[in-house]
Amino acid sequence: MAVVVSFEEGRGKKTPNIDVLTRLVAEDLEKVNRTIVERMHSPVALIPQLAGHIIAAGGKRLRPMLTLASARLCGHAGTRHVTLAACVEFIHTATLLHDDVVDESDLRRGLASANAVWGNKASVLVGDFLFSRAFELMVEDGSLPVLAILSHASSVISEGEVLQLITANDTDTTEDAYLDVIRSKTAALFAAACRIGAVVADRPRGEEEALESYGLNLGIAFQLIDDVLDYSAKQAVLGKAIGDDFREGKITLPVILAFRRGDQEEREFWRRTLEQLEQSDDDADLGRAIALMEKHGSLQDTIARARHYGAMARDALAIFPDGPLKAAMTEVIDFCIERAY
Amino acid sequence: MAVVVSFEEGRGKKTPNIDVLTRLVAEDLEKVNRTIVERMHSPVALIPQLAGHIIAAGGKRLRPMLTLASARLCGHAGTRHVTLAACVEFIHTATLLHDDVVDESDLRRGLASANAVWGNKASVLVGDFLFSRAFELMVEDGSLPVLAILSHASSVISEGEVLQLITANDTDTTEDAYLDVIRSKTAALFAAACRIGAVVADRPRGEEEALESYGLNLGIAFQLIDDVLDYSAKQAVLGKAIGDDFREGKITLPVILAFRRGDQEEREFWRRTLEQLEQSDDDADLGRAIALMEKHGSLQDTIARARHYGAMARDALAIFPDGPLKAAMTEVIDFCIERAY
Repeated sequence: MAVVVSFEEGRGKKTPNIDVLTRLVAEDLEKVNRTIVERMHSPVALIPQLAGHIIAAGGKRLRPMLTLASARLCGHAGTRHVTLAACVEFIHTATLLHDDVVDESDLRRGLASANAVWGNKASVLVGDFLFSRAFELMVEDGSLPVLAILSHASSVISEGEVLQLITANDTDTTEDAYLDVIRSKTAALFAAACRIGAVVADRPRGEEEALESYGLNLGIAFQLIDDVLDYSAKQAVLGKAIGDDFREGKITLPVILAFRRGDQEEREFWRRTLEQLEQSDDDADLGRAIALMEKHGSLQDTIARARHYGAMARDALAIFPDGPLKAAMTEVIDFCIERAY
Repeated sequence: MAVVVSFEEGRGKKTPNIDVLTRLVAEDLEKVNRTIVERMHSPVALIPQLAGHIIAAGGKRLRPMLTLASARLCGHAGTRHVTLAACVEFIHTATLLHDDVVDESDLRRGLASANAVWGNKASVLVGDFLFSRAFELMVEDGSLPVLAILSHASSVISEGEVLQLITANDTDTTEDAYLDVIRSKTAALFAAACRIGAVVADRPRGEEEALESYGLNLGIAFQLIDDVLDYSAKQAVLGKAIGDDFREGKITLPVILAFRRGDQEEREFWRRTLEQLEQSDDDADLGRAIALMEKHGSLQDTIARARHYGAMARDALAIFPDGPLKAAMTEVIDFCIERAY
């Protein structure tokens, strides 16, 4: 499942891996998957078809795993976290469906995106369905604090998406403005996914906030590394698509750093390719973009920034007693960052 | 606000009017409008701009008024119904924004639609925001039964929208299949808007169900008349757009009845214009469609069907004691139907 190039193999250091966490929550995760399949059902067959396409396409189920792990870390002995983890995945899937419409993406995780197969209209509506269904599940669970956390996260996510839409193709975007976007559009759901784990376990507010902080900073690190991977030579070697962000003119941190550190002529290049979206057909411009990033160390420095947020996530967990779950959740931070290599 | 052509003026019969209800709930409705403006606020300025455009464009605020009236009819003395009426309007507005994207509409209530001004992407995302914000408001209100009713209504609405998408342009659609669509996409929110009025007033289940039934049947009648108006000579005389449904190939009840009652050649006409969407540029085909509907009485009979649901809505209210609110809610049924003339 997790594709990690063990860049430090031979140097005796273990490559951080998400599989440890996956194994620890495997039984619960199986139940989450069953809940997802059961609850995305609708008499309108297109709904489970389309939703199944994107949910089966997989991903690592990172967000629901974080809910499961957080609840267990807090000593939750029941099964409420399973339902709530499914809610988190439904909300995540709904945002992916709407994202792909907004980005006009044809691919998602190497497969045809739902909008490419069934059209934008169906993607918008099935996203709405999954979102509503997530709330129905939360209501069945019956916790108003959980509903408050996830409804707030959802509105923050859409604020972040709108903010990203407005700042798209604007090379003047500052690092801070960009952080605001990813805090909202990506990290808010990570934060909520973790926090509700403490809520179902009925733990004190300090633990809720610690898990929220872990999730938030992990989410920021995760997104920054995603941004790096889109320009990563390693991705290209692995046969994964690169340059999607570039072709869409997305202003991510590697771009922001390269733009600010570049000279006048380089800034003209960024403006032409990302603001006016005038790009060569042969990927020569993408090649130049990567070369400029390497010249200015902007990919490396984005990873360094990610490490900073990773460190904050790690420290947020410090109040919890040591144990296999805490170790696995810490390893997830490293995994999210090291996949950049 | 309400444009009613008093077709029976001079015959001494009063034209049914929505203004009586509007006056009865005016004070509460003013508070709803303030809540809407306050709670659609976001630091991301595009959100209140876009949401304000569609919310200000108005409409009659029929759905939130139904929540207000239902709560008062049930003797609710507090202000919770104000917040919940705003939630209903937010959900309605979110579905309008997504509808316009799905229908690729350029106009909404005679003004440029949000997607025409700000693009589909912003409409999708601001719809998501309003939807999330509605749930945040419900959580603040704190009633799980209300959350259950509105989250369920939301998923039913999206099921109805997907169903409509699938059956679009299919002249074989039966009247029953079409009723399933409008029960979900339109009537479910009317039903929920009314039912939550009884819930906040803490009334017995029988009253909840009576109001739900009133809302459901009123919603069906409302949609059927909307379908008629799209082909209505009266609308054309008033300078309102007609033929939108025809140009999009929407299969509504007037079409279903005309298609089934037509001969082979007529059915070919419907298939060409609504399935293949091959339509003349000069509205000659729209003219023929209206002529065929008149020939087969399909507009009149759609109104007759609407009267049937209107009668059910009226009887659903019968368990409530007579009074000005009940009278006004009954008049709304007549208003919804008589606007066809």
